[in-house]
Amino acid sequence: MNTKTQSNETISEAELLALGKRAFLSLGMSDQDTNDLVSILVMADLFGISTHGLSRIESYGDRLKIGGINPKPNIRIERLAPALIGVDGDNGVGPVVGMRTLNAAMEAAREFGIAAAFARGSNHFGPISPYSLIAAEKGFASIIGSNATTTIAPWGGSDARLGNSPLGFGVPNPNGKPFLLDMAMSVVARAKIRNALKRGESIPDTWGTDAQGKSTTDPKVALDGFLLPIGGHKGYGLALMVDLFAGLLSNAGYLTHIQSWQDAPDEPQNLGHFFILIDTSRLGSSAWLSERMVDFANILMDSPPADPSKPVIVPGMIELAKLEKQRKNGVEISSETLALLRQYAGDK
Amino acid sequence: MNTKTQSNETISEAELLALGKRAFLSLGMSDQDTNDLVSILVMADLFGISTHGLSRIESYGDRLKIGGINPKPNIRIERLAPALIGVDGDNGVGPVVGMRTLNAAMEAAREFGIAAAFARGSNHFGPISPYSLIAAEKGFASIIGSNATTTIAPWGGSDARLGNSPLGFGVPNPNGKPFLLDMAMSVVARAKIRNALKRGESIPDTWGTDAQGKSTTDPKVALDGFLLPIGGHKGYGLALMVDLFAGLLSNAGYLTHIQSWQDAPDEPQNLGHFFILIDTSRLGSSAWLSERMVDFANILMDSPPADPSKPVIVPGMIELAKLEKQRKNGVEISSETLALLRQYAGDK
Repeated sequence: MNTKTQSNETISEAELLALGKRAFLSLGMSDQDTNDLVSILVMADLFGISTHGLSRIESYGDRLKIGGINPKPNIRIERLAPALIGVDGDNGVGPVVGMRTLNAAMEAAREFGIAAAFARGSNHFGPISPYSLIAAEKGFASIIGSNATTTIAPWGGSDARLGNSPLGFGVPNPNGKPFLLDMAMSVVARAKIRNALKRGESIPDTWGTDAQGKSTTDPKVALDGFLLPIGGHKGYGLALMVDLFAGLLSNAGYLTHIQSWQDAPDEPQNLGHFFILIDTSRLGSSAWLSERMVDFANILMDSPPADPSKPVIVPGMIELAKLEKQRKNGVEISSETLALLRQYAGDK
Repeated sequence: MNTKTQSNETISEAELLALGKRAFLSLGMSDQDTNDLVSILVMADLFGISTHGLSRIESYGDRLKIGGINPKPNIRIERLAPALIGVDGDNGVGPVVGMRTLNAAMEAAREFGIAAAFARGSNHFGPISPYSLIAAEKGFASIIGSNATTTIAPWGGSDARLGNSPLGFGVPNPNGKPFLLDMAMSVVARAKIRNALKRGESIPDTWGTDAQGKSTTDPKVALDGFLLPIGGHKGYGLALMVDLFAGLLSNAGYLTHIQSWQDAPDEPQNLGHFFILIDTSRLGSSAWLSERMVDFANILMDSPPADPSKPVIVPGMIELAKLEKQRKNGVEISSETLALLRQYAGDK
């Protein structure tokens, strides 16, 4: 394990996009797929979600090199019903499959007012909020989810049989910032535990358990055990529903049928994703939506804060402010990730 | 406040349906609307969710009598896009508007594979899982939500500006029991606090706060304060998203624009609901879905229980077992509710 101290550098969005593209092109991916992949990962870095940004070159790169992920997938898009789309990801990189699926869903939702697209044969999805933002900027409200490697036990159970499936919601705000919610059902993401391990730190005992279901503060032990869900049976139920929509209904793997990208990096994961998009322009005018979204945010933010130093915020506000700032001033990214990107890109 | 001891009686489903219909017919509702309303409320009682069953005759009846709810609504259904439906509930009883909206959504989803219906001008929604079950029995996976009277503070705020909006998911299981999740974003439902008050009991300090945002164990004080969300900012975010979909996008009221059925029983609430339905028969055959649903449940229930006396369960399992049992042996219902139903029905 890498235990060196983490240092960050700041680099412009354009440079980061270009570097990311060169890196993934060197791994045999097509120009278009590289564009899609890097646009999603760099947006995660812009949002400040670096665990789901270009740092993923580490695992994605390894798996592309050893054939665990198909660098040149033949992604097939099938219209199952007028507003229902099935996508076979052909074991491509997750965000490549994700972007194709999102685009197909947006096209159908524009035509029918709402559409759903279900992807199978995919891999680690990456972050959700970039997809939600892309959809929101085009006027679509969205519900997006993916399943994931098993890290959570069924409620009352004692072994990991359920992924920490992320679920995202987005609602456009024509003259302001959209509302974006991107949440997993565990108290924290597995990546946070990996980062604690990398930094040599212990973790709170509410984050995860050992392999026998007992709480632990040791990140290494927790990575061999499983994550704990929020809200007990409610978080368990939500995680199941995300897997049912993303995995079971999409004809992908689900629960323990999902391959772990860590334990079996050379095998397809057969992950699934779902996108439900609603064209808000069919519900009312842009002025109507804008007025309501501004009013909605104001009502919440006008609540007197319990702690005067912490004003009330709304979902996505922190990430979108960070995106704006980093687009202007440059993106903070770990030196380790930059070094790996440059190595793949053949720089120096 | 009623503080008498709660006693229950057992009555057959058929008798309860007939009694409920007579009661609501006496309040000026149409035959068809009464059928819809009573079928939803009795199903809640069958599920064991008595807080959202026929006990609602108390508040629904009061409001129908004083003109707060329209007993004979002219519910208008508009096709906003091929697969997108807007419903004006004309201030009808919530489950009446809900059933019309569900039926319109199912019809469109059958045609396009997926559909969404947004209702406005409605009132207290009632329970979600009966709608999810009706949809699941016809082969539809569902995401259903409603907004509600404000009882939750924004995360970090100090006054109630957000409803305890319920969110439900359902997935059909052609040869077995569907998966049904029906959850609100608070740790407990407001009705549970009201029931504690009726029984003269104190409540855990995690359920709600007083009017200044401080935790309380007094149900009366908590009913004057607001509910606490699950998972902190995650539950807050989810509750917002449900209100954005159910209230803001549907052109209904939202947040503090919702009228409280308790504080202003004589005024329309202008609540909103949303139904997103997916026709699973377009995704694969009944045999395909059945095999996957059985496998999915088995994987979870095969997890060794942490407590051997409590086997792992899946969402909806308890409620559906209760429904099966009560359909056979009769429905348990409070004597108080029965007395009120009989009074409205003019029995004895």
